[in-house]
Amino acid sequence: MTTPPINNIALIGIGLINSSLARAVRLKNLSAHIAVADINPDHLAMAQQIGLGHKYCRRNAEAVAEADLVIIGTPLGATAQVLQEISPHLKQGCIVTDVGSVKRCVVRDCAQFLPAHVFAIPGHPIAGTEHSGPAAGFAELFQDRFCVLVNDLCADEYARNTLENFWRACGAIVEWMEAAHHDQVLAITSHLPHLIAYTIVGTATDLAKDLKQEVIRYSASGFRDFTRIAASDPTMWRDVFMTNRDAVLDILQRFNEDLTHLQRAIRAGDAATLFDWFTRTRDIRRNIVSLKQHVPEDQKKTGQP
Amino acid sequence: MTTPPINNIALIGIGLINSSLARAVRLKNLSAHIAVADINPDHLAMAQQIGLGHKYCRRNAEAVAEADLVIIGTPLGATAQVLQEISPHLKQGCIVTDVGSVKRCVVRDCAQFLPAHVFAIPGHPIAGTEHSGPAAGFAELFQDRFCVLVNDLCADEYARNTLENFWRACGAIVEWMEAAHHDQVLAITSHLPHLIAYTIVGTATDLAKDLKQEVIRYSASGFRDFTRIAASDPTMWRDVFMTNRDAVLDILQRFNEDLTHLQRAIRAGDAATLFDWFTRTRDIRRNIVSLKQHVPEDQKKTGQP
Repeated sequence: MTTPPINNIALIGIGLINSSLARAVRLKNLSAHIAVADINPDHLAMAQQIGLGHKYCRRNAEAVAEADLVIIGTPLGATAQVLQEISPHLKQGCIVTDVGSVKRCVVRDCAQFLPAHVFAIPGHPIAGTEHSGPAAGFAELFQDRFCVLVNDLCADEYARNTLENFWRACGAIVEWMEAAHHDQVLAITSHLPHLIAYTIVGTATDLAKDLKQEVIRYSASGFRDFTRIAASDPTMWRDVFMTNRDAVLDILQRFNEDLTHLQRAIRAGDAATLFDWFTRTRDIRRNIVSLKQHVPEDQKKTGQP
Repeated sequence: MTTPPINNIALIGIGLINSSLARAVRLKNLSAHIAVADINPDHLAMAQQIGLGHKYCRRNAEAVAEADLVIIGTPLGATAQVLQEISPHLKQGCIVTDVGSVKRCVVRDCAQFLPAHVFAIPGHPIAGTEHSGPAAGFAELFQDRFCVLVNDLCADEYARNTLENFWRACGAIVEWMEAAHHDQVLAITSHLPHLIAYTIVGTATDLAKDLKQEVIRYSASGFRDFTRIAASDPTMWRDVFMTNRDAVLDILQRFNEDLTHLQRAIRAGDAATLFDWFTRTRDIRRNIVSLKQHVPEDQKKTGQP
């Protein structure tokens, strides 16, 4: 089912994701008008300089007044306040979505703050880089990437199709999911890996200066991959761990048990336990490669080990 | 100082590293003769089929008889036995090196098993991929990668220059280091990251089947980077942890303390601690990028978060 074009889009927060969306919308002519709002005047000025929108607003309420589709691209910690600000100004039948990495909290906030005459469909495009801000975006960011849309709140087929087609037009593969399931899966695939990467890079940061310089020099042997992940936006990730606490602590507990198991094997000189573990872990990689969820650069030479 | 060419090279074990060296030696005409030995008849047959050497030997002793340079490319657990086997057959003035990821154990074994009339210079090219075996090698593997040579055993300048120039001719950047310092730095940059990656992928392997499929499907959000590291050769990595136990356990202890610190912050809802930590970790990445120790593909778009 196709749906008519969206005439007016409001982008609340113009960071990496929303600035990429603005570029995709303009490139593919997906909407006649884009209103951009950001509380950071530097980001707003930069968005205007790049020409990402048609209207630039300091106040979120101003940006949403004519919108058929509102996309909240602020850190998760700001979502509740944004929803409260825009709520009285939303048009009848407007679709309100977001791009945050945790979804139960957004479902809860939408249910609490949005009026009954709008469609709330929280979302999460699983795409990004370690760079942030309006200058870091690019139109192809969502190409062949998954975008999860959450079906907890909105049963309206027309609104669901409209948003699904919008993301497809931006290049994404749309998947519908319950918010709780999304948060559990992403705790494993994204939040725990980021926490681990932040930890190990922090551990290295505390080393004596000479040793730290050596670690940077020889980082190609594995450490480097973690530093890229650990260079992600601090505000965004603080909010992820604040809002997906239970799912993260649950998988972290399992990880800790497994790490202790391997630590004991190393201390005891238990070669068989290590060999078995290191053999088992190859299967998941084969699955990822066979599902074509790896990227070609994964196969190029690296500095490892 | 330049040194004369090496007339005869013996490659003991024809896996990823030594098969890449064989290709580089032939491509750049660095030696008139290469003798290849491997206890695995399949690998030896494949090496012969590819045409990596001039002579193929089941027995290590046979391969080294005429060698000016012997390069041991077996897993670390086999090094002591290889040294015992070849020791009585080595020519006067032969250089014996290796490519293992841990160096104190190799220094110890060389001191114990090699005769006084050869030059022992353990080494570690910091290069590799997650693929193994003679078919996985390529001549450019060492281009612009560090190769650490260990100065604990050999003070002979002529031998040191010969080996250094050999690695430079293969494209590597040579660094001389004490074995103990190498093992401490690599424990941080390589061994701990691999242990962590093996752990998290193992944790995911134990998930219920449905959830595991979802994790594979959405692996682009961070997890995927860990699966590539955790697909590395199990024998090699078992031996790394068996031989560099103390340095790995030391840095692992610090990592565990730091992870517990962040875990407590998540549980307590301590946003400031997380934000500070996630901000500090950006500096190391900037250093790596400014030292050009990142790879271009690091900067391309990824599926994160």
